[in-house]
Amino acid sequence: MIQEAQYHARDPEFRGQRSGGPMIPTCDLINTGSELVLGRTLNRHGQWLGSLLFSQGAQVRRQLTLPDGAIIAEEIERSLNEADIVLVTGGLGPTSDDLTRDYAAQILGCELVEDEGAFSALAARFAARGREMSAMQRRQALLPQGARALPNPRGTAPGIWCGPEMLGGFRARALCLLPGPPSELHPMTSESLLPLLQAEFGLSAPVSDLKAFHFSGIGEGDLAAKVEEGLPGDTGVELGYCAHSNGCMELRLTGEQASCERAAAWVRKNLSGDCFGEDDGCLEAHLLRDLAARGETVATAESCTGGLLASRITDVPGASSVFGHGFVTYANEAKQKWLGVPGATLEAHGAVSEQTALAMADGARAASGATHAVALTGIAGPDGGTAEKPVGTLWVAVSSSGHPTVARRHLFTTDRATFKQLAATNALDLLRRRLAGQL
Amino acid sequence: MIQEAQYHARDPEFRGQRSGGPMIPTCDLINTGSELVLGRTLNRHGQWLGSLLFSQGAQVRRQLTLPDGAIIAEEIERSLNEADIVLVTGGLGPTSDDLTRDYAAQILGCELVEDEGAFSALAARFAARGREMSAMQRRQALLPQGARALPNPRGTAPGIWCGPEMLGGFRARALCLLPGPPSELHPMTSESLLPLLQAEFGLSAPVSDLKAFHFSGIGEGDLAAKVEEGLPGDTGVELGYCAHSNGCMELRLTGEQASCERAAAWVRKNLSGDCFGEDDGCLEAHLLRDLAARGETVATAESCTGGLLASRITDVPGASSVFGHGFVTYANEAKQKWLGVPGATLEAHGAVSEQTALAMADGARAASGATHAVALTGIAGPDGGTAEKPVGTLWVAVSSSGHPTVARRHLFTTDRATFKQLAATNALDLLRRRLAGQL
Repeated sequence: MIQEAQYHARDPEFRGQRSGGPMIPTCDLINTGSELVLGRTLNRHGQWLGSLLFSQGAQVRRQLTLPDGAIIAEEIERSLNEADIVLVTGGLGPTSDDLTRDYAAQILGCELVEDEGAFSALAARFAARGREMSAMQRRQALLPQGARALPNPRGTAPGIWCGPEMLGGFRARALCLLPGPPSELHPMTSESLLPLLQAEFGLSAPVSDLKAFHFSGIGEGDLAAKVEEGLPGDTGVELGYCAHSNGCMELRLTGEQASCERAAAWVRKNLSGDCFGEDDGCLEAHLLRDLAARGETVATAESCTGGLLASRITDVPGASSVFGHGFVTYANEAKQKWLGVPGATLEAHGAVSEQTALAMADGARAASGATHAVALTGIAGPDGGTAEKPVGTLWVAVSSSGHPTVARRHLFTTDRATFKQLAATNALDLLRRRLAGQL
Repeated sequence: MIQEAQYHARDPEFRGQRSGGPMIPTCDLINTGSELVLGRTLNRHGQWLGSLLFSQGAQVRRQLTLPDGAIIAEEIERSLNEADIVLVTGGLGPTSDDLTRDYAAQILGCELVEDEGAFSALAARFAARGREMSAMQRRQALLPQGARALPNPRGTAPGIWCGPEMLGGFRARALCLLPGPPSELHPMTSESLLPLLQAEFGLSAPVSDLKAFHFSGIGEGDLAAKVEEGLPGDTGVELGYCAHSNGCMELRLTGEQASCERAAAWVRKNLSGDCFGEDDGCLEAHLLRDLAARGETVATAESCTGGLLASRITDVPGASSVFGHGFVTYANEAKQKWLGVPGATLEAHGAVSEQTALAMADGARAASGATHAVALTGIAGPDGGTAEKPVGTLWVAVSSSGHPTVARRHLFTTDRATFKQLAATNALDLLRRRLAGQL
């Protein structure tokens, strides 16, 4: 979800080593798949793994993106001769262009043999779906002899770990083949790969401390201005800002532990109104915990976001304890029928108006019986704007038992998908400020 | 060990060449900058240049992302020995870690000399801003002797083109150093680089063709089995599969135009039931066009997807012409109140059941007055599963005027976010099959 990171000038350049510290293992990342070099899919693995490995005390020496084909074998062999750790993603599936395991066996000079555990896991997966496993599918249980299968509960092909005992004659002490889909790669990395790397290379947490604060309802420029005008200059921490694509902001403090603590204390004291949490950057999860603790519930009424707000709320496991009803009232008729927005309001002020937003929020709360309701109406674009209500106009409202209903206007001139994300975040932010007693 | 021949037979890329046809120049892309391997900045150059080069008739052999340091020189030299075209981005600026031009001169065994034109352009740029040019800034006018400066009107450092006359002894016939910032790289590529490549390599229209087909409601393994068992072996096309994170599948055919046409004809004839489109891979957009053409509408009733289906439908501009009402009925009470699901059905069969899915779809259609309604109910996890209804269980149903209401069961054992995406895609797929007369 990280759209773009802009870093402060104080962010030091990476020098490739730490002075006086322990040996830092080097890692080559090889991402395979013709769709990546053809430009049809954006390769995000390099960024994700690069940042993760750095945080674990390893260092990426080179990252390669390769089309399916023999060059994968050539580059794996080179990397085994030049790096300490070689990670390969992709090419473990059942199709004819999935040859990574074959290349690995070739390079290591061993046979591919069926792994019993991997076969059972595959068989169980197919049985659970009531489907037969084809010979092609069964190939996924093949491992270079002596390798270890890494469980893949979220997909079919297991990962493959080849340790130092298999890598005699090479510089590398670990070769690990990982699945390409992020939904399989990410959990396998944290559940299986990192513990193995930690055991093999004695990786430890980096020397410096890192504190992360998460903000909503404030832009990058305003946040940076508050921090850089207010934070005492001698804290000795590095500042990092990151604007997430949903509009939430992250502020990172890096440095010696004591310096980080001092700067964090300043942030906690001075930016608490905009800050919704530390470490956990999920605004939805934060709100759901808050609501659950108060024994309260929320309903949603969405026009321009078309269900995205409800979907983001229900991305959080256990959402059902605080969320039961969501209305996607894209048509005016739906706003009237399900939320009781008066036809006269729609006629006099239009669907995108303060009055309609207020009526939607009140109507959703009444219809659902929830403690709170948030409502959104706006113009996502690219068409439908007018001089008075341009594309990007948003009205967001919150209705709560025992409080006046409040609406806010925003203008987000961006693409349709980003508009929807920013709008949903601002609805969540409005509810957050209500729960915090700011409204 | 698997018989490799079987898997390579239709994969000409594996052999590193195509039989017959004109020579396709290979290109290595090297993107430099420590911020890229640290994961602080997402490298989009590979995708952008890869897709552009392919459209121009060149083929990316490998793409590398490298930290600042000597490995840049090593990899440039390797690439010069192995590829026809070597493109390097980044490291042309004025600071001490900008060493790409020095590495290039070293490898080519020539001096860096100041280019008159580049110096004048730099001087004019600084003069226009009323600023003095420092010695460090002036370094940017240095070029390996014999190289050609590529104008950079949007930045300071010019690009550097080294043609075949400078590359004696190497395989490559072009080495081009380009600026890192996209705002400088993109215009320089189209204004200077592509014309030079076209002149040197006679690139014009793409030599090879690319056809992309998009599928829903079929997994990667099943699709591959259908293609590889059915597609005649002598079509001479390369097959590429890509499983998108929403569960849609992409099949790519690459090769000579006539071969691609033949294979595409086979796909159109034999896989039309699963295929929803060519080139445009957006299932939602495809459905919305179909509905609009028929003058029909759709409503949604979601439990486990919590609004994601409605949100994906409304991601498409103009969705309001076919979508007006969406119900997020996360609580049983909401299923009864808004969709009229009988309490007895919920009690007898549970919320995740064929009967509830059918009642939700019928209820949503009746409440909204839409031509079609799709409904989803399932267990997204990670908790809430039972032996009989494990986490990942999904019931999806479609109700349409003049047709029997149909429900289908699926099991997606994956993480919560992926489950929601796969479920929404399968609901769209069910509607697609209804519109196509398959149900």
